[in-house]
Amino acid sequence: MNPVLQYLADHEHEFVESLCHYVRFPSVSAQPKHVKNLRDAASWIAERARGLGLETTVHETPGNPIVVARTAHQDPKKPTFLVYGHYDVQPPEPFELWKTPPFEPRIERRNLYARGSADNKGQHLAHLNAVEAYVRTGTPLPCNLVFLIEGEEEVGSTQLYEFLPKHRKDLACDAVVISDNGIPSLEHPALTYGLRGIAALEIRIDGPSRDLHSGLFGGSLENPAFALCQLLGKLRDQRGRITVPGFYDDVIPLSAYERRQMARIPHDDRRYAKFLGVPQHTGEAGFTANERRTCRPTFEINGLTSGYQGEGSKTIVPAWASAKITIRLVPDQKPAKILSAVKKHLQSLCPPTVRLTVKHGHGGEPYLVSPTGPMAQAALRAMSAGFGREALLMREGGSIPIVAAFKKHLKADTLLLGMSLPDDNPHSPNEKFSLDAYASGMRMAAGLWPELARACA
Amino acid sequence: MNPVLQYLADHEHEFVESLCHYVRFPSVSAQPKHVKNLRDAASWIAERARGLGLETTVHETPGNPIVVARTAHQDPKKPTFLVYGHYDVQPPEPFELWKTPPFEPRIERRNLYARGSADNKGQHLAHLNAVEAYVRTGTPLPCNLVFLIEGEEEVGSTQLYEFLPKHRKDLACDAVVISDNGIPSLEHPALTYGLRGIAALEIRIDGPSRDLHSGLFGGSLENPAFALCQLLGKLRDQRGRITVPGFYDDVIPLSAYERRQMARIPHDDRRYAKFLGVPQHTGEAGFTANERRTCRPTFEINGLTSGYQGEGSKTIVPAWASAKITIRLVPDQKPAKILSAVKKHLQSLCPPTVRLTVKHGHGGEPYLVSPTGPMAQAALRAMSAGFGREALLMREGGSIPIVAAFKKHLKADTLLLGMSLPDDNPHSPNEKFSLDAYASGMRMAAGLWPELARACA
Repeated sequence: MNPVLQYLADHEHEFVESLCHYVRFPSVSAQPKHVKNLRDAASWIAERARGLGLETTVHETPGNPIVVARTAHQDPKKPTFLVYGHYDVQPPEPFELWKTPPFEPRIERRNLYARGSADNKGQHLAHLNAVEAYVRTGTPLPCNLVFLIEGEEEVGSTQLYEFLPKHRKDLACDAVVISDNGIPSLEHPALTYGLRGIAALEIRIDGPSRDLHSGLFGGSLENPAFALCQLLGKLRDQRGRITVPGFYDDVIPLSAYERRQMARIPHDDRRYAKFLGVPQHTGEAGFTANERRTCRPTFEINGLTSGYQGEGSKTIVPAWASAKITIRLVPDQKPAKILSAVKKHLQSLCPPTVRLTVKHGHGGEPYLVSPTGPMAQAALRAMSAGFGREALLMREGGSIPIVAAFKKHLKADTLLLGMSLPDDNPHSPNEKFSLDAYASGMRMAAGLWPELARACA
Repeated sequence: MNPVLQYLADHEHEFVESLCHYVRFPSVSAQPKHVKNLRDAASWIAERARGLGLETTVHETPGNPIVVARTAHQDPKKPTFLVYGHYDVQPPEPFELWKTPPFEPRIERRNLYARGSADNKGQHLAHLNAVEAYVRTGTPLPCNLVFLIEGEEEVGSTQLYEFLPKHRKDLACDAVVISDNGIPSLEHPALTYGLRGIAALEIRIDGPSRDLHSGLFGGSLENPAFALCQLLGKLRDQRGRITVPGFYDDVIPLSAYERRQMARIPHDDRRYAKFLGVPQHTGEAGFTANERRTCRPTFEINGLTSGYQGEGSKTIVPAWASAKITIRLVPDQKPAKILSAVKKHLQSLCPPTVRLTVKHGHGGEPYLVSPTGPMAQAALRAMSAGFGREALLMREGGSIPIVAAFKKHLKADTLLLGMSLPDDNPHSPNEKFSLDAYASGMRMAAGLWPELARACA
């Protein structure tokens, strides 16, 4: 065994300790009360990088700091790769659903339970640990590395989007590596070659100027909650397709090759439904569950609000009703175009008896890299070696909007090498990270740089 | 002019003084700090009745006292009528919206401003004043009268519902008279011959066992909020009719006579929409606004709850979605039958990909007395005489649950003879009672007993 892998094997216990330390910071970017905790998490990861001899800067921003750490003595003749990660985490609420407190790590059967363990502290820390193995064993890296660790990924990366164009020279690279996603199982590591994009919006229907007595007035005016339900209800047909005109116009159809690859990902319908906790899973007709959740656009209602929501009943016609919506986009759908098509359709459906407001939220482009190019093939070999199993090709259903920004500002493609397992509960109570995935991820990260350097040669 | 009416005219000033005294008691049943004030109000109205020679008992209850006052020397050969009222009032808050303090009566342009002036002290005091006119002028009443004045109407009449079955013999009567409602205007006095009933329910759609990441899983399972919208959306057709099978089966169609009567109630579409604060009013096709809000059943969503409702967006497939619903019923719809029809229909529409729960809430029967029957016609004549204008027939859209209790326990129909005007602001700041309505109401009350006694003969 080469000394780098030997080092990783010998120090696994310390790497787990280190991750336990890291997840103790309640670095919740959505909640103002955690500003200090976010700074502490940033300082801690910066200190770790400095300890390995990386040239590290904690960049102040109007929001949370951005940490940039680069390997010393960068060699312009070697290729440069950028590793991206984020030290901020999702809100832990609702607390009562956590078996143990979200920021007190608990290890049970090779899983580390804590908010941020999988998303994303464990995954970028694995990359830093692999660098530690190179540094501590005196093994020269075949490339220059730049770590870029931000603190606002869970709230839209506002500061990073400002930062990237300003630092495009410092961050110039041949490819970006992100481990902030998942794989089907430890036995099925996979390279993610496509991502869904996103378009957010909020719909509000205003009716009477105040909540009205449903006895005195009910029946003689439109009920905004009813109008909202009827409006939204019309947006999907019986085959599960979104009825907005033009919605599917820019969707690149899946090739036969892609569908074959996708079919290799293990999937059991009954088990999947059981995992989700639904009586049976469903979706757009003509596609498999994996295709539906990774390669097809969706229209999701994330929240509904109207009228009285307390105990018992209140006999009112509510003054207004609203819905939060996110649309998942696939290549080559564009957020702005889809949002405007949805808005236009809603306006055409809305009755004149109420007032409709559509507020656009954030948008993110979908992403796709060629699965047969030299970089992807190099990454597949590193994954296969790290996990000890042949890596598959897959797409992911989530959005990593920063991927589009790297393409735009750094002109670099991104390789998505996930370590998270399907039952890791990111964004949910009892988030966890598999310690086996952590170990395999470190081995993959160690093997990645020689493979990628060769592919760039 | 007969001596009774002459007496009423001669003593109007004292009757206003008397009402001013009555409304000074802050008898707010919703607020424990007013327990003493409620007792004082009960004692005051009891003392007034005793002063007229009525046999009066202040019945102690676990809550506020119930006052029963009956005319002396009751004659079993004469018919007996029960006058119901309540001495408790709505909370006055918010104080800052009152032009003058709520329990300091102010008279301005023939209106008496005070909490409880219209709802309901002024209206039942008018009836007692009419009895005073009979007593003081030595005019024999053509009937026996029982006044039943409770102190918990604004908080659900809990004690009265206990009291009624226990005192059904003492309270036996040929008809109940309630003046605790409204009329379109002084120029359009009206007998309310119908009320809507109510059936409450709560619908909940459960999907995944927890909120799921909409990127990772969205598209491969039903979104409970979307399912709820589609389910509810299907419950109403394009003509504004509820699609639940059997929903209209028991609705007694409006007769041509009723519709003609209803059409006499003044109504201006544009003004009405402006008053509601909606771009335009609407409702079930084929009916006028007045018919829609008083004579037609409705299906109102009172509240919607699902997923994330805070600032910004949260990219989840919510675990569940729920709706609070109240259905307004019209004669002869039955709450239990309608609830079961709605539940059955919802179950038939709900897809197998989510779980549906329907929880039944409270129910109340609709109410209707024959508008052409002798009692109603007698009441109409008394109204016309009292207000000096031909009285109309109308229905009201809200529920007065005590009416069903009188029917159940006393087997008596109720005549609803309102004196309140549409701008009286009951339950709102600056409640008022028109002194003209007060005077007309007393004249109506005086004329009512001979008319009703003749109708019973």
